[in-house]
Amino acid sequence: MSEKWVYRFDEGDASMKGLLGGKGANLAEMSRMGLPVPPGFTITTRACNAWLASGGQMPEGLMDQVQAALADVEAATGKRLGDPDAPLLLSVRSGARFSMPGMMDTVLNLGLNRDTLGGLIRATGDERFGYDANRRFVMMFSDVVLGLPKARFEQILTRYKRQAGVKEDTQLGVTPLKALCNDSLALVLQETGAGFPGDPMKQLVMAIEAVFQSWNNERAVIYRRRERIPDDLGTAVNIQAMVFGNLGLDSGSGVAFTRDPATGERALYGEYLMNAQGEDVVAGVRTPHPIADLRAQLPKIHQEFQELASGLEQRFRDMMDLEFTIERGRLYVLQCRVGKRTGPAAVRMAVEMVDEGLIDAAEAVRRVTSDQLDQLLHPRIDPHDLHARGLRTLATGIPASPGAAVGQIVFDADAAEAAGKVGRPVILVREETSPDDVHGMLGAKGILTARGGKTSHAAVVARGFGVPCVVGCEALHVDHEARTLTVRGEVLAEGAWLTLDGSDGRVFGAQLALIAPEIGGWFGRLMGWCDEFRRLEVRANADNPRDARQAVAFGAQGVGLCRTEHMFFETDRLPIVRALILADSEDQRRAALQKLQTVQQADFEGIFEAMAGRPVTIRLLDPPLHEFLPAHDELLAQVIELRLAQNLVSGRALAGVLAEKETQLAAVEAMREQNPMLGLRGVRLSLVMPGIAEMQTRAVVKAALKVRHRGLPVHPEIMVPLVGHPQELARVRAAVEAIAAELLADAPEAERFPLAIGTMIEVPRAALQAGAIAGHADFFSFGTNDLTQMTFGLSRDDAGRFLSTYVEKKILPDDPFETLDQAGVGRLMQLAVTEGRAAKPGLKCGICGEHGGDPRSITFCHDVGLDYVSCSPFRVPVARLAAAQAALAGGHEDAAR
Amino acid sequence: MSEKWVYRFDEGDASMKGLLGGKGANLAEMSRMGLPVPPGFTITTRACNAWLASGGQMPEGLMDQVQAALADVEAATGKRLGDPDAPLLLSVRSGARFSMPGMMDTVLNLGLNRDTLGGLIRATGDERFGYDANRRFVMMFSDVVLGLPKARFEQILTRYKRQAGVKEDTQLGVTPLKALCNDSLALVLQETGAGFPGDPMKQLVMAIEAVFQSWNNERAVIYRRRERIPDDLGTAVNIQAMVFGNLGLDSGSGVAFTRDPATGERALYGEYLMNAQGEDVVAGVRTPHPIADLRAQLPKIHQEFQELASGLEQRFRDMMDLEFTIERGRLYVLQCRVGKRTGPAAVRMAVEMVDEGLIDAAEAVRRVTSDQLDQLLHPRIDPHDLHARGLRTLATGIPASPGAAVGQIVFDADAAEAAGKVGRPVILVREETSPDDVHGMLGAKGILTARGGKTSHAAVVARGFGVPCVVGCEALHVDHEARTLTVRGEVLAEGAWLTLDGSDGRVFGAQLALIAPEIGGWFGRLMGWCDEFRRLEVRANADNPRDARQAVAFGAQGVGLCRTEHMFFETDRLPIVRALILADSEDQRRAALQKLQTVQQADFEGIFEAMAGRPVTIRLLDPPLHEFLPAHDELLAQVIELRLAQNLVSGRALAGVLAEKETQLAAVEAMREQNPMLGLRGVRLSLVMPGIAEMQTRAVVKAALKVRHRGLPVHPEIMVPLVGHPQELARVRAAVEAIAAELLADAPEAERFPLAIGTMIEVPRAALQAGAIAGHADFFSFGTNDLTQMTFGLSRDDAGRFLSTYVEKKILPDDPFETLDQAGVGRLMQLAVTEGRAAKPGLKCGICGEHGGDPRSITFCHDVGLDYVSCSPFRVPVARLAAAQAALAGGHEDAAR
Repeated sequence: MSEKWVYRFDEGDASMKGLLGGKGANLAEMSRMGLPVPPGFTITTRACNAWLASGGQMPEGLMDQVQAALADVEAATGKRLGDPDAPLLLSVRSGARFSMPGMMDTVLNLGLNRDTLGGLIRATGDERFGYDANRRFVMMFSDVVLGLPKARFEQILTRYKRQAGVKEDTQLGVTPLKALCNDSLALVLQETGAGFPGDPMKQLVMAIEAVFQSWNNERAVIYRRRERIPDDLGTAVNIQAMVFGNLGLDSGSGVAFTRDPATGERALYGEYLMNAQGEDVVAGVRTPHPIADLRAQLPKIHQEFQELASGLEQRFRDMMDLEFTIERGRLYVLQCRVGKRTGPAAVRMAVEMVDEGLIDAAEAVRRVTSDQLDQLLHPRIDPHDLHARGLRTLATGIPASPGAAVGQIVFDADAAEAAGKVGRPVILVREETSPDDVHGMLGAKGILTARGGKTSHAAVVARGFGVPCVVGCEALHVDHEARTLTVRGEVLAEGAWLTLDGSDGRVFGAQLALIAPEIGGWFGRLMGWCDEFRRLEVRANADNPRDARQAVAFGAQGVGLCRTEHMFFETDRLPIVRALILADSEDQRRAALQKLQTVQQADFEGIFEAMAGRPVTIRLLDPPLHEFLPAHDELLAQVIELRLAQNLVSGRALAGVLAEKETQLAAVEAMREQNPMLGLRGVRLSLVMPGIAEMQTRAVVKAALKVRHRGLPVHPEIMVPLVGHPQELARVRAAVEAIAAELLADAPEAERFPLAIGTMIEVPRAALQAGAIAGHADFFSFGTNDLTQMTFGLSRDDAGRFLSTYVEKKILPDDPFETLDQAGVGRLMQLAVTEGRAAKPGLKCGICGEHGGDPRSITFCHDVGLDYVSCSPFRVPVARLAAAQAALAGGHEDAAR
Repeated sequence: MSEKWVYRFDEGDASMKGLLGGKGANLAEMSRMGLPVPPGFTITTRACNAWLASGGQMPEGLMDQVQAALADVEAATGKRLGDPDAPLLLSVRSGARFSMPGMMDTVLNLGLNRDTLGGLIRATGDERFGYDANRRFVMMFSDVVLGLPKARFEQILTRYKRQAGVKEDTQLGVTPLKALCNDSLALVLQETGAGFPGDPMKQLVMAIEAVFQSWNNERAVIYRRRERIPDDLGTAVNIQAMVFGNLGLDSGSGVAFTRDPATGERALYGEYLMNAQGEDVVAGVRTPHPIADLRAQLPKIHQEFQELASGLEQRFRDMMDLEFTIERGRLYVLQCRVGKRTGPAAVRMAVEMVDEGLIDAAEAVRRVTSDQLDQLLHPRIDPHDLHARGLRTLATGIPASPGAAVGQIVFDADAAEAAGKVGRPVILVREETSPDDVHGMLGAKGILTARGGKTSHAAVVARGFGVPCVVGCEALHVDHEARTLTVRGEVLAEGAWLTLDGSDGRVFGAQLALIAPEIGGWFGRLMGWCDEFRRLEVRANADNPRDARQAVAFGAQGVGLCRTEHMFFETDRLPIVRALILADSEDQRRAALQKLQTVQQADFEGIFEAMAGRPVTIRLLDPPLHEFLPAHDELLAQVIELRLAQNLVSGRALAGVLAEKETQLAAVEAMREQNPMLGLRGVRLSLVMPGIAEMQTRAVVKAALKVRHRGLPVHPEIMVPLVGHPQELARVRAAVEAIAAELLADAPEAERFPLAIGTMIEVPRAALQAGAIAGHADFFSFGTNDLTQMTFGLSRDDAGRFLSTYVEKKILPDDPFETLDQAGVGRLMQLAVTEGRAAKPGLKCGICGEHGGDPRSITFCHDVGLDYVSCSPFRVPVARLAAAQAALAGGHEDAAR
């Protein structure tokens, strides 16, 4: 016996989405609930896959089962497919496991031909309706099944409307509709060489095959890739008796949501049109009525609808999205699915459904996605304002740091900083940013670059600061000298208004209205549940008191990474750092170290105060020193120019400037590295350049003592970066401990505090030697940015040139800098956690790479047994949610793919 | 009862080196053999360690045991320590487990004071001898035990010699010697505030403690670090009755080897002086006689000596180094140890001892060290010529590629290449080298650079070519414009003669004579035994037919790594490669690819012919493309100059040059990477830049078919570099297989051949995903250079600035680029081999990093179960030896430290 390929609606239920697709399973469920669903049946996704695998052969037994199910529909409706007297018309619709709206194909009114058209007209008594149904069918079938462009048929329709002098389809009378049908059929004959198929059964077979085929159409494939839907699921085909919303003024069609998908408000939401088919509602031919109008217009239907919606919510325990038709006063539901919603709506609905007893708190937490939550945390462009102005995007780049920003264009960091100080909103626009721009990035409302990817300097820093940012906007041409921005011929001068959205990459050449973040009561309650469920602690990466306060406001339980070097880049500090690096004498070195210690200490005090006793993990100086020096190429150019100038003109001033630039160039060249990522940085600096680690330890301990002295608790942790060998950590630990012990010994006993000393695990060797390293570490913090770079042998700065190709061609499943590579990097993490804890039971392990804010990576961190994740302050709520979801998912997945 | 701290010579044997030290154990063994050894005893190394651990307390019972053993010596000699009538004099000598010549301390003639001196004079009837013995004792004891500088005593001696108008010590009479002794004792009183200790027992205790203490003197500590001798072994103390070689013309002292340590010839070798103590022979006061002279001078002693030497060789199964004294016609052996030897001598002795039945072939293989074998493979500076000329080194750098070279200085690669073509010997001297210099490095006899370390470009390329090379010679100042080389004020112009030794880093400013490599019969026989014992296959890294032939001559069983890009750097090819990279159009690209294919094919043909059917592993293009482009900074400078020039003068020629340079600069900047090591290279090139892998595959397959067509066997293997994800290999494999299949299909069936396709494992992720990658690989080849860089997060090019500090401070035990890091990189290798073979049983695994030529790393490769190692052609014999030694050592060591 052949496989069961076909299920009547009353044979399935909502749990069978894999086999029947989402639409089919929900139609079945509604049938079982006794809701008014027109009778029909579903062809399984397995049938689709079998058809695709065989290169287009109908699986054995399929059509027999279709015939049988069709017979049941005929019995239920009292009509028959192809029967000129009581013709049954069918809708044939695709329906995959996951909703892919508009991606695949639908044919309505199937079963019409010359004979049945007559029957339809007789049965309805409405000639105009009959020909209108016929013209819709011919156009849709030709488009979907025969592959003739819809536009060709629309041209014919437009011609007839012009001839008739009418604007709307509905205004066309019977005669032109008849002619239009004939012209359309003639077009089919002309284009295909064969006539339009008249046999309803043949129509049905062709439509089924067209739906199967549509699984692999280009837009469906692209959609699946974007939404991470597997390619091998296949689509089901739903075949259902037609009901008509255009049979007069007591008929109509509409779409509805059981709650407001934009705000989450608990009230029926949607719109309908009387005397119209569903596609008319969507097409916006006439302005539809809000669903509330039904109450006055058809009170019984409205009542029935309310009950139906409430029943659906009870059954599906979620907000549902329905399509319905009213045929001559009778309500039919054509399909239902869980409704899409905005972030704010998702949060509100989840919380209110808990209050209503519809779901429990765990389900509420499970149901809100990270992206939805993230929407609440950033300003958004007001869609009404945008709509009202009818603005088009100026350009679209890569969304790099979420949230919308409005401001006037500035082209350099100093200008941005100055504007920030006086509260003037500006957008910093650069070809790309460098560490020299950091002070300006802090002052700007938003950042826009023409180059770079999601992990470019601009992107990383902007996310750290929570400043909206769009990068890699290649349509931009920035002319720094002219101080203009050109986009496809349009020139914007400095001072022109821009609005950008760092959540989706759009850039507008105007001052748009924004909607502020909505962190209301629903958000707080959801977060509270998250905190109850999650096991992972959530910390934030914060480099200054401002970030630390922001982090606490978002619920961070500590600072997981304080990058002390970010403090070094600030305008008032960079000269001291340069003096340190370029010092000629030990005295100069010491003086510079002393100055730095003073400013660092003040920063640490602010952070400790903001964190009020929560742990603060401070990383010792990490980047290669030349990052603090002037850019090499620029210096080289200056020196060459000055040398040539000296050959033409001689003067002491010139000679002096040249000598100074030459000294600087020599220093920069001496520090230059082939591969700075793999050079003199991290713990190597502490071991090779005396005094820096010691200075930083002094600043940390003195700051903590000062805060303790004011009676506040402190919990400092010193973290050593780039350790690869146990001895590296042992040496630095000894130096740090010695200084801490000395300073603590001088303090009153009541003000002393324990100082934890741990290490980053960011070099593969550290993971491979975790057992030995754990002997010297109070904690491990996975620096997965560098660990990914080194495990893959892939520089983030350079990967842009080929990583996108890799992801596009599916050589890599994901960008490993966005989502943690579990098979490689994750394996090293697993190994380090296991062996580190074997050597030191209870060793605290966390993550402070960018992955600490990525939901899928957070799930892995939970599964691998980390104690905490640390991410940028604005990602903290998302991390709390993801950590809770991971805990609710429970169990450990197999870490290796 | 206390531990046994003291062993009489007849209580020990040669196996007790750990407890008695090498000298003590061998003295015991000789005593047991009945050889004429003056009686004595040994204080154990455990006693030394106990003394050091307690901070200088004599272990309990030690001095009682010394007293008892001393009594035995007194009984045997009929003399007593401190007895004015028959005074016993003692030597007190250090002796650790491993020979550390000259590193620790010795006191002779111990026991002399005013009273015993009289007795000694009476007993010998030689007043001059007595005072001479006394002055030696006072000086030595004061130096070694009291810490007074020897130089102070030598000043006194010199003064008396001047006063007496004599040149030699031996010419001083009794009166000045007496006065000299008094002056020396007075100096001791003045410097120490206490008199010279007169009590012989006190002298003995002090001397023992001085020897204990000497284990930790600075030179001993440095020596141990260099020779990798553990610090916790301690030294034994050997106390022995003195015998005197300076008691007249029937007395004498000497040193001897049982075979010639320079050549290995089987004949007594050494020298002696009559009427002299051992230190006189070493000091070179008089010219000693060769040992053969004994035959005429003291035939009986010579005969006795011959028998004794033969007995020692039988007993110790090795060439021995002896110290002996003849006291009034009686021969005494004072110590013996296994003799040091040159490389040629080591090989000859090992082989001849097998012929003599003294040892078996396995022992011969075990006994020759890699360094010794390596000496045979390279020209050496003739030490006689050096000695005759009395030349001092001009400078010393880092030995980077072994062998000596003589030639005239040239400063650029083109000149070196030109000289090479006409056979004029030149040394290429550069600040440092770059890929642009490669053609010149091939033409030079030797390479000398002022910068860079053992893994700098110059070093790596020179080793690959087998060209002697000294790098990092920081005393050099190279002035390219003046074409001079300045070393500490000395200026050498282009054309001046240099001799350098790439085995030890010495550089001489002269044309010295060289000794050619001696690859005689002994070498061949030893290598034959190695090949019998070893399990590892040994291949060579060869990039061209010349290297391939060299590799075969040295016994390579295949080419493990053919770096196709090295071919690209040759002068006639670089322009084609640049044309390919900078191509504007697809036509230009294709034309360049076609040209490259032709030249590559010719190279491959040559290599396949040279290897005559042995496997040849060809790596697809690996380095970042900008390595083939002009240097960025130089181009930038040119463009800036030209732009400024254009502002002053305008002309079409100038504009044209500027435009060209600007285009080049733009191209170079577009290719520039922050971290080229982690950028667009390796398999990424094959996946992102279409055509290159395909072109190379065509060249390989066509070359192989051509060679097959001539009737020769071929065994090509294509290797994909930098793979980190299975999909990377799968894609390239598919492309390579498709082209190979197409080309092979066109060939006659008899000429077809199998094409293996494998991958480098050089990215940590590849090791972590070895199981999945093995599914697409016919073999794995560990690229441990890159694997080390990425596992440590350490760039070879930049590590020079801190790696030496790391090794000095013992943060790392070794330079991981010289000796494989077993705990980190080795662990990844172990994992990859295990999981790769689990997925594909019998998967062939090899290594082609520089570690493939390092003996300790080869041992690890054997233990971890690799199938082959591949190294530079000149390291092949060393690898064969190391592989054999690893097999003989047997067993698997624990791979993780």
